[in-house]
Amino acid sequence: MRLKVRKFQLKAGKPIAFVHQKDAEKLNINVGERIEISYKDSMTIGIVDVVSGFIKSGEIALSEQITNKLKLKSKYVNIGLGEYPKSTKFLKKKLNCIPYKKSEIKKIINEIVKGSLTEAEVAYFISGINYCGMNLEETKYLTEAIFESGKKIKWKQKNIADKHSIGGVPGNRTTPIVVSICSAVGIIMPKTSSRAITSAAGTADVIESIAKVNLSIDELKSVVKKTGACLAWGGSLGLAPADDKIIQTSKIIRIDPEPQLLASILAKKLSVGSKFVLIDIPHGSGAKVSLSKARSLKDKFIKIGKKLGLKIRVLLTDGSQPIGNGIGPILEVRDILKVLRREDSPKDLENKSLKLAGELLEMVGKAKNGKGRKKALEILNSGKAYKKFEEIIKAQSGSFKYLEFAKYKHEIKFKKSGKVKSINNKDINYLTRLTGCPLDKKAGIYLHKHKRDKIKKGETIITIYSESKHKLNQALNFYKIQKPIRLG
Amino acid sequence: MRLKVRKFQLKAGKPIAFVHQKDAEKLNINVGERIEISYKDSMTIGIVDVVSGFIKSGEIALSEQITNKLKLKSKYVNIGLGEYPKSTKFLKKKLNCIPYKKSEIKKIINEIVKGSLTEAEVAYFISGINYCGMNLEETKYLTEAIFESGKKIKWKQKNIADKHSIGGVPGNRTTPIVVSICSAVGIIMPKTSSRAITSAAGTADVIESIAKVNLSIDELKSVVKKTGACLAWGGSLGLAPADDKIIQTSKIIRIDPEPQLLASILAKKLSVGSKFVLIDIPHGSGAKVSLSKARSLKDKFIKIGKKLGLKIRVLLTDGSQPIGNGIGPILEVRDILKVLRREDSPKDLENKSLKLAGELLEMVGKAKNGKGRKKALEILNSGKAYKKFEEIIKAQSGSFKYLEFAKYKHEIKFKKSGKVKSINNKDINYLTRLTGCPLDKKAGIYLHKHKRDKIKKGETIITIYSESKHKLNQALNFYKIQKPIRLG
Repeated sequence: MRLKVRKFQLKAGKPIAFVHQKDAEKLNINVGERIEISYKDSMTIGIVDVVSGFIKSGEIALSEQITNKLKLKSKYVNIGLGEYPKSTKFLKKKLNCIPYKKSEIKKIINEIVKGSLTEAEVAYFISGINYCGMNLEETKYLTEAIFESGKKIKWKQKNIADKHSIGGVPGNRTTPIVVSICSAVGIIMPKTSSRAITSAAGTADVIESIAKVNLSIDELKSVVKKTGACLAWGGSLGLAPADDKIIQTSKIIRIDPEPQLLASILAKKLSVGSKFVLIDIPHGSGAKVSLSKARSLKDKFIKIGKKLGLKIRVLLTDGSQPIGNGIGPILEVRDILKVLRREDSPKDLENKSLKLAGELLEMVGKAKNGKGRKKALEILNSGKAYKKFEEIIKAQSGSFKYLEFAKYKHEIKFKKSGKVKSINNKDINYLTRLTGCPLDKKAGIYLHKHKRDKIKKGETIITIYSESKHKLNQALNFYKIQKPIRLG
Repeated sequence: MRLKVRKFQLKAGKPIAFVHQKDAEKLNINVGERIEISYKDSMTIGIVDVVSGFIKSGEIALSEQITNKLKLKSKYVNIGLGEYPKSTKFLKKKLNCIPYKKSEIKKIINEIVKGSLTEAEVAYFISGINYCGMNLEETKYLTEAIFESGKKIKWKQKNIADKHSIGGVPGNRTTPIVVSICSAVGIIMPKTSSRAITSAAGTADVIESIAKVNLSIDELKSVVKKTGACLAWGGSLGLAPADDKIIQTSKIIRIDPEPQLLASILAKKLSVGSKFVLIDIPHGSGAKVSLSKARSLKDKFIKIGKKLGLKIRVLLTDGSQPIGNGIGPILEVRDILKVLRREDSPKDLENKSLKLAGELLEMVGKAKNGKGRKKALEILNSGKAYKKFEEIIKAQSGSFKYLEFAKYKHEIKFKKSGKVKSINNKDINYLTRLTGCPLDKKAGIYLHKHKRDKIKKGETIITIYSESKHKLNQALNFYKIQKPIRLG
């Protein structure tokens, strides 16, 4: 079918072709399917969006990725039914739980990066991994394929270290503290973090409330050169574009298949050039994983890490309740500063950070085995960690000037006295998202009590902060219905 | 985030919102995700397409489905992160193989129809069914939900009958023959068929080469009133929009999960008001299903059909090789006409059609048990079936005038003598698609030999017809590489 090209300067990052509804019917093609678009001797694949109205029947609007690839100079292209990319065949294989070959995984990841797999195909890929799993070899191949698909950062130094938490625990903002402690004694920590996926805020969202986090690779290198560390958002660096895409599609139904989780973390550690990697796996009721799952993950992290030449330690930590008091970007920054400034800090956040920092200090040889925590506390008490954090934030064009709360607040008080029996992480995350997080940096909640704390009648359990009354009420309603905190 | 609305008269059939790349980054949203779009007190959900160039940062382009729903009169809307539709939660449940409740299936199907599930979510739904299956109750609920989501056709008569093949066998065009034979003796057959999914041509594609198949419900009723039958395309009738959408997404990786197959077929039979349903399950090497799978499907069809008040017979037929000689729309019409006109017809196509027609005649009481085939042959020999077919085609604005082959042809000859050992259905389907089918109605292949036929050196085994030399060569190359026909 010959169609007239309407130019729209689409830069959708994938090869989109807008086809008129009538033409789509003639060709029996639908949204998300592929067509072959040809001009002279060039042919490329477009993913169809069916529209009517903004182009006429007989016309086609093409994204720049397509027009550039075709070197289009004419006003007309020919379109036909698109063949499936090679990797589609492999996807089907996994639906029958047949393990992927190395070359197949590489092909799938490359096609995800090129944008030639549709949303639905990526979902099938994820489902396959979710149902059938991947053996250690496959997971290693997946890690390598994701690593190779993106940019890499190289360093002259050897003591490049990294930490990572698998997430799921509200307020668990140990990263800035651990990075500050460790880099204060010369460990190089080019830390990249993610934004919130299912939680109320990711480390990148939190740091973004006080500094620039979407650094280019050059900017990141410059910050690390200056300060020995950074606290950047991983997403803007192009380190693992395949992984970003897979996470986008997984997040739709909030699944996180184990092989993808392993590969995603390890590939990013390879990309930033880390040699020493400490992984925090919070487990328990309300955490992402149970203790037995955490143990199995630990085992896999260590085995695959070894295959990839990484030195890995894995800590299984208590993930059964939120950590710290503030949940939400600015609220979490305030907790971090309390710990670093040696003010009246949330002890759970401080202790966990010291434990993690201590392990890293031991791994890299900055402390003897068993003495890491003590060393970490010394660094913290000396004020060096706070100074380092200040340096990093400054190098990332940030400051601690603006730390106020959101406009509206509401205090939730308990009507009975008792002892806190449980705090549901997922509900707390959701509640905090309803306040406007992570977009509204000043929104969030302050959790006054933790598990096993005693509470008196009329005492405040949670303070909600929000930029709008509507969101405040939404959060409050959710709290009333869901009751995320239960007394014993 | 407040955005200026650019009007584009998008009628995409789903709520699409084009968001500028910069704004999407700020909001941390990606292609295919949901946003909440609000104006005054109205709020609706949009599915995001990220673009740059054809709208500016700060602008948003909305499909009519959205602007209508919002009753938008302002130039500005507010957008925020979209909550997930309820059914997303159910989708995740099935990923853990937990059976769906009736209400959950209904909700999912309704949201698929409204377009509020993304492509990826539909893919997750399909994956879930594919891996975990569905029990009989669930499959019944799925059938009812699909049936209820669409339009229904009602009839005064009681002897409404239907036939259906699960497909996969090239050239298996028994439907027009069976419909012509049965409706010639007064059985009402409002037959709707699909277009090619994985095969080279569906019955709708074949009939479309000589008549109009995209009938409205009124047109379909008028054709049936006039002739007692029709041969329409099911897709334009809106009978089972949920099913259409699910098939679109399944077809991407060419899977056809059993519960979906059962529900899809049975829902459509309910929609056209059928009481008697004959189902053809071709099985064997190269067919969609093995004999044991065919037996299990038969059992399920009958059990679920009973729950739904349908009278069902299921035939297990040989699906190990193509049926008839012509494969491709016009080529298949020529075979059908040979059978109906009592010319030198492909005996396999004729025999299978007589068998199926005979069963239907028995089911509806037009022949005694065991005497159906004989009765069918009488009708065929009497010329009444041909006359009926002519009537139907004429009522659908068609004729038998244009039955020529495509412009280019190539004869593939065998270099050795021997006996045909196997003909691979999938390869033959793919080969035929490469010739340009089903879009190029005159393209396709003529299969001169079948399994167990003797062939002499230099004899033609396949003639390829195509509208372009390029496609002809593509098909020929595929033949050479794949060798779909093997000698014993």
